Amino acid sequence: MLTINESRLLEDLDALSQIGRTPDGGVSRPALSPADAEGRAWFRQRVLDAGLEFRQDGAGNLSAVLLAQDPAAQTLLTGSHLDTVPNGGRFDGALGVLSALECLRTIQESGLALPVHLEAISFTDEEGEILGLLGSHAVAGRLTAEDLQRARGGQGKLDHGLRRLGLTRSGLLAARRDPSRLRAFVELHIEQGDRLEEAQIDIGVVTAIVGIRSFWLHFGGKAGHAGTTPMSRRVDALWGATTFVQRARKLVMNFFAPGVMNCGQVLVEPGAFNVIPGTVHLALEFRHGSEEHLDNMERALLELAKDVAREYHLTLEIEQSGCGRAAPMHQQVVEAIEQAADSLHLSHTRLLSFAGHDTQVLSTIVPSAMFFVPSVDGISHNPQEFTRPEDVVKGANTLLQTLLILSQ
Amino acid sequence: MLTINESRLLEDLDALSQIGRTPDGGVSRPALSPADAEGRAWFRQRVLDAGLEFRQDGAGNLSAVLLAQDPAAQTLLTGSHLDTVPNGGRFDGALGVLSALECLRTIQESGLALPVHLEAISFTDEEGEILGLLGSHAVAGRLTAEDLQRARGGQGKLDHGLRRLGLTRSGLLAARRDPSRLRAFVELHIEQGDRLEEAQIDIGVVTAIVGIRSFWLHFGGKAGHAGTTPMSRRVDALWGATTFVQRARKLVMNFFAPGVMNCGQVLVEPGAFNVIPGTVHLALEFRHGSEEHLDNMERALLELAKDVAREYHLTLEIEQSGCGRAAPMHQQVVEAIEQAADSLHLSHTRLLSFAGHDTQVLSTIVPSAMFFVPSVDGISHNPQEFTRPEDVVKGANTLLQTLLILSQ
Repeated sequence: MLTINESRLLEDLDALSQIGRTPDGGVSRPALSPADAEGRAWFRQRVLDAGLEFRQDGAGNLSAVLLAQDPAAQTLLTGSHLDTVPNGGRFDGALGVLSALECLRTIQESGLALPVHLEAISFTDEEGEILGLLGSHAVAGRLTAEDLQRARGGQGKLDHGLRRLGLTRSGLLAARRDPSRLRAFVELHIEQGDRLEEAQIDIGVVTAIVGIRSFWLHFGGKAGHAGTTPMSRRVDALWGATTFVQRARKLVMNFFAPGVMNCGQVLVEPGAFNVIPGTVHLALEFRHGSEEHLDNMERALLELAKDVAREYHLTLEIEQSGCGRAAPMHQQVVEAIEQAADSLHLSHTRLLSFAGHDTQVLSTIVPSAMFFVPSVDGISHNPQEFTRPEDVVKGANTLLQTLLILSQ
Repeated sequence: MLTINESRLLEDLDALSQIGRTPDGGVSRPALSPADAEGRAWFRQRVLDAGLEFRQDGAGNLSAVLLAQDPAAQTLLTGSHLDTVPNGGRFDGALGVLSALECLRTIQESGLALPVHLEAISFTDEEGEILGLLGSHAVAGRLTAEDLQRARGGQGKLDHGLRRLGLTRSGLLAARRDPSRLRAFVELHIEQGDRLEEAQIDIGVVTAIVGIRSFWLHFGGKAGHAGTTPMSRRVDALWGATTFVQRARKLVMNFFAPGVMNCGQVLVEPGAFNVIPGTVHLALEFRHGSEEHLDNMERALLELAKDVAREYHLTLEIEQSGCGRAAPMHQQVVEAIEQAADSLHLSHTRLLSFAGHDTQVLSTIVPSAMFFVPSVDGISHNPQEFTRPEDVVKGANTLLQTLLILSQ
């Protein structure tokens, strides 16, 4: 069975982690930064060293390509991102790009002739220094000039960064790929959670990247003197809001697992020791793997909020705050990953991804899936982020077998 | 049986309510304001019109005095305050002062010779435009130069206000009365709550003015990604804090009534839709009628907080924020009020005062008690504040009989 060159991959990971390295062993390589530019130059050189074709599209997405004999063949795409959050870790993104590159090198060296072009891609700005998922949105044809107007840090920073990489706004907007030319997309990533580590499972096959919905729940009671108003006659908005938090938690844990909810902010008015809370603004967010699940959660949670408001004689205003669609993974790609893991005698499980990834964007134009390897203590976006070398190798070999399966 | 002159009292209340009258029928007569000065001049004239002795002490407390034959007699003190909160009502304070004045007039007209001097007093700044309970603190010898440094609105405003009334700082600090010269103090006030109205009871005899204790409860969990952290593995500070609010409420209602508690502020960190609350700062306040009750409540509530923190694996820091001692009323004065109400065939009940009053300060130097008459819908500190004329009269007659009992 074909396997990757373990030491070459681990050396690549180590070499890349030196670029943007922080004093505490982390990595700061935000998109369009000087460190990003340096990382890109290093990657280009590694691609060329391997005798693979190097490409950069208008969005600054970088690719290594192993061409099929038939120029008209479809492209099987795999990869992740080279950028990091400020003071992030060495594996988030880098693992998927360098494993993809290693797979191409391994296949090239093996002399196998595949019926597809194989492309190892690094997407620009996955982490959100500019917009987040910028490169994958560009590839999917979903990036607009208006999006660029909302760039974090302002237009000057965007233009300065684009110039640094030799990119232009028009190039970004023209980076769309023809979906019919793509066979599939598969991404290897660290888990950014500790479910695999806890369960001592090698491979987590993502069945969906969760959708997110968020609401402000405005509970309205009657502010009053916290002494002279007897307890039994209070209309305390906090009593309702705290009841909601308690019940919503149980509701989601009992009926919507593995879906999750969070109440991340509470604003009390008027907000004084000696005044009964008149209004409580509660930030509610929940996530699940399909729009159907999200619909059911939304119905149940908002119904619960209304019940609680009625019970405590409160008014309730519900204000939608945000919404991101769930991205189901493609069954065929999911099964290819499982088959690959089986062929390597690796344990695997299906799970949801609760963090966003380029795969969720690619899934809108091409059969896509992704899989995780364990991340120690589930730490990510942190210098402490770590994935054991044996898990790196298991992940890369699973990716290799997955590509071989999908290429047929 | 001797009774007050109803129409004279009601006309006085009406006349006083014109001073500082607001467009919506309320009264703005904050301490040391031009309206306060005008109200004081009106009161002085009413005292002189009645042929009573008028006095003003160094703290600006105004008195009508009906002298006993024996100059060495003790003084039986009754009254309340003429100042209001900005945009307040017509009865809070005014009822107690004008009823006291009416009692003196009634007794004077009756020709009764009492063995005590009778003094109807209006205390300066009960409501807190400057410090709150300023005049009663001065009488009790508990006002310091440092207190005056903390005057709300600053030193310039204080000095300006004092000049308006012809007062000085040194006068304020020298207004202490010799407790041995005082027989008792009794105050008539509106309830500022709706317990009497609800129960259709004429007179509420206050057994204690509650003490207040307040704490910040700092619950510490672990902030984290609201997607990737499974619900079962979260250390969510808000789960603990909301559980505490729910249980504390039940604890106080079930075991500490008529004591009350309030959680009036909640501060969540970091406070975002997509981040699990890492820290929650919860403002806890509770009130009860005796230090012993307060001790028991404090023990139970803080033990509950510790239990909840343990249950949710949170850290807990407890920070005392404030504390005001409970003021028990004097048994003999309480019974005099009850005897007076009985003699008038008025229904009465014992209750706690959850708001502060001058009586709590007087109680530290002289046998004191106070009683309430109903306030419609419990509204106070509001232009809508209203007490029915029949309840005004019942209160004033109860005060009259109480004074007659206490004078013996």
